[in-house]
Amino acid sequence: MHSKWNQQYARRMKRITSSAIREILKLTDQPDIISFAGGLPAPEVFPVEEIALACQHVLDNYGPKALQYSTTEGYPPLRELLAKRASKPGFNVTPDNILITTGSQQGLDLLGKIFINPGDTILVETPTYLGALQAWNAYEPEYLMAPMDDDGLIIDGLEDYFRTSPKFMYVLPTFQNPTGVTLSLKRRHELVKKADEYGIPLLEDDPYGALRFEGEHLPSIIELDGLLRQEEGAYDGNAIYLGTFSKILAPGFRLGWTVAPYEVIKKLVQVKQGADLHTPTFNQMVAYELLADGTIDRHIKLIQNIYRERRDLMLKTLAETCPECVRWTQPQGGLFLWITLPEGHDTNEVLKQTVERKCAFVPGSPFHPNGSGLNTMRLNFSNATPEQIVTGITCLGEVLRDVTK
Amino acid sequence: MHSKWNQQYARRMKRITSSAIREILKLTDQPDIISFAGGLPAPEVFPVEEIALACQHVLDNYGPKALQYSTTEGYPPLRELLAKRASKPGFNVTPDNILITTGSQQGLDLLGKIFINPGDTILVETPTYLGALQAWNAYEPEYLMAPMDDDGLIIDGLEDYFRTSPKFMYVLPTFQNPTGVTLSLKRRHELVKKADEYGIPLLEDDPYGALRFEGEHLPSIIELDGLLRQEEGAYDGNAIYLGTFSKILAPGFRLGWTVAPYEVIKKLVQVKQGADLHTPTFNQMVAYELLADGTIDRHIKLIQNIYRERRDLMLKTLAETCPECVRWTQPQGGLFLWITLPEGHDTNEVLKQTVERKCAFVPGSPFHPNGSGLNTMRLNFSNATPEQIVTGITCLGEVLRDVTK
Repeated sequence: MHSKWNQQYARRMKRITSSAIREILKLTDQPDIISFAGGLPAPEVFPVEEIALACQHVLDNYGPKALQYSTTEGYPPLRELLAKRASKPGFNVTPDNILITTGSQQGLDLLGKIFINPGDTILVETPTYLGALQAWNAYEPEYLMAPMDDDGLIIDGLEDYFRTSPKFMYVLPTFQNPTGVTLSLKRRHELVKKADEYGIPLLEDDPYGALRFEGEHLPSIIELDGLLRQEEGAYDGNAIYLGTFSKILAPGFRLGWTVAPYEVIKKLVQVKQGADLHTPTFNQMVAYELLADGTIDRHIKLIQNIYRERRDLMLKTLAETCPECVRWTQPQGGLFLWITLPEGHDTNEVLKQTVERKCAFVPGSPFHPNGSGLNTMRLNFSNATPEQIVTGITCLGEVLRDVTK
Repeated sequence: MHSKWNQQYARRMKRITSSAIREILKLTDQPDIISFAGGLPAPEVFPVEEIALACQHVLDNYGPKALQYSTTEGYPPLRELLAKRASKPGFNVTPDNILITTGSQQGLDLLGKIFINPGDTILVETPTYLGALQAWNAYEPEYLMAPMDDDGLIIDGLEDYFRTSPKFMYVLPTFQNPTGVTLSLKRRHELVKKADEYGIPLLEDDPYGALRFEGEHLPSIIELDGLLRQEEGAYDGNAIYLGTFSKILAPGFRLGWTVAPYEVIKKLVQVKQGADLHTPTFNQMVAYELLADGTIDRHIKLIQNIYRERRDLMLKTLAETCPECVRWTQPQGGLFLWITLPEGHDTNEVLKQTVERKCAFVPGSPFHPNGSGLNTMRLNFSNATPEQIVTGITCLGEVLRDVTK
């Protein structure tokens, strides 16, 4: 018997297309599969004991407060600390510039809710973070796709896109999801300058910025924008920044934050109130303790080392097993690298073969708003163990040699 | 200097009206004020120790899992337990009927996102929960307002509203927010039958159902709908139910759940993935432990007694201090009661006077989508201590005597 909701009531619900990647991830959820598909941190090194101590501390000292409703903006000491950590001379982030969100994913959704009307144009990098597209598709925008190379977003020609006046541009400048590529400092300056010139807000998503394994730290887009302006008061520029505790502490806490001009934060607070009232008080207070006492900074150092080793091993195994016609990125940090097959190949077909051999990745096409990128794929190197990386990549290499011969 | 975002960029952001109640609650946030304004549980009786033990247990036994990303649907054992607790012979709730949300507020938002197109009509009780209006206003519906009396929603005449084919009807049948009124059993049966007849989905919001101080437990709308159908398989009827841990455990955990036909849950999962990926894994696992080991059921008994005493004291003090022309509801449970002044009075003006005397409540008008109800107000009796209730209500009584004389 078919569901009544499938028939009689279907017209009541909006058409929301099912996520391709969701189905793939379900497939790869089998315990015996080696998966490079998700974007998961290494769970075996989560700072479980430190978190347990912080939970105890928060409940012992602030129990009633930690368990009660709290303000939509977020836990004030956490907002203060995040503001302080973000600020630089000439770039003043105040707590009023900060909203705590339920993961940075919620920041994407709330920004979609306040900015996007059906038919609005959003300018994105190609490829881009699939979860952003998913969050925004509910608001029915059109996407304009700007090309990238190994130095990130290509600035040359960007003005043509800016001239069409998109609602905002979405960028992941550092260890991009999905490519692992980083926008060079020179291009960061150019991007900030041009966006300001054309009055196009820049939405900077930075989940991985702290996870640099090599090379020099690069300033964020919002920081460069602030420095360009040298405002005396609180940041009131052209950029919006999304940060998250998911990669530097634990995704199971669902904690992120948005840095933006106060006028934007005010709107976000209004829609967040309707969306979930506020982010869990307890989680915010625990994260505050761990950020304030240095646990998170120590943990970042630990995972930088672990992820570096895994990336190195993945790059080495790829070099050893993949055919010459296959190319991949050389990320300096983050969680992902990106593989490109010769044109004409379809990584969905490759996936079918690797899954049969108990190894999985994400095909690149869902990261392209127009469904292109069939010959690409994303590999995660943070979640699998070194043994799994060798076994899985060797398997992938064999399949790739087979399909490209 | 005015913000650039206020001027140049204002047109980029949607018009989202500021919440009146938000401003009021800020006003009442001063520490020396006695506030009956919020909907806050009594923080001094939160089961802090039990929660601390559960946190420790979860981290000791399932640390990496509790801190990792998890499925959008929610923690499977929690969904199973909630399904089991909801099921009755003839009303089969399966885990597939359950989505864990970031507070039941998120359930409201996600339902708005999948159901409401601009201009759609939503049928609501008058007055109704302000947070639902706030969540849905982002999707630009129109509201149709059905009247209530002391037995809840008036069924007589409801067919006229149903005939206009609203997208769904939103009801809070038990200890309603804001009125504290409960829909009688007879009317529940009638509502379920008529809604089915006209094919109008019923969205039942039930944050307070477990907090009954007196009288007999009444079956939920979704349960009655299930029983009417006597489906053999999983529930696939006409109703959607929102539950929450905020009132029976702690709001600072931001945990709620939605019970709905699987086809609805599927859509909700799709949009929830874009909204915040999933509800915090850790919080879900802690709540599961406390629900499974009986802590939550014990806690419910404790707060039933405490809230009953506070309600009794508030009712007694109102009777002693208010003028005869003022009427109020007699809630059998929940957190709120509702006061009606003679027509022509404006409780916004009353609030100004009580705030001067350090006592606050919420004027009733924001609970009416059309801004009516100027002569009404909501009082919360769960959060203030008995001493504060006597002092605050005595003050309110004096002001009411003064303004109505």
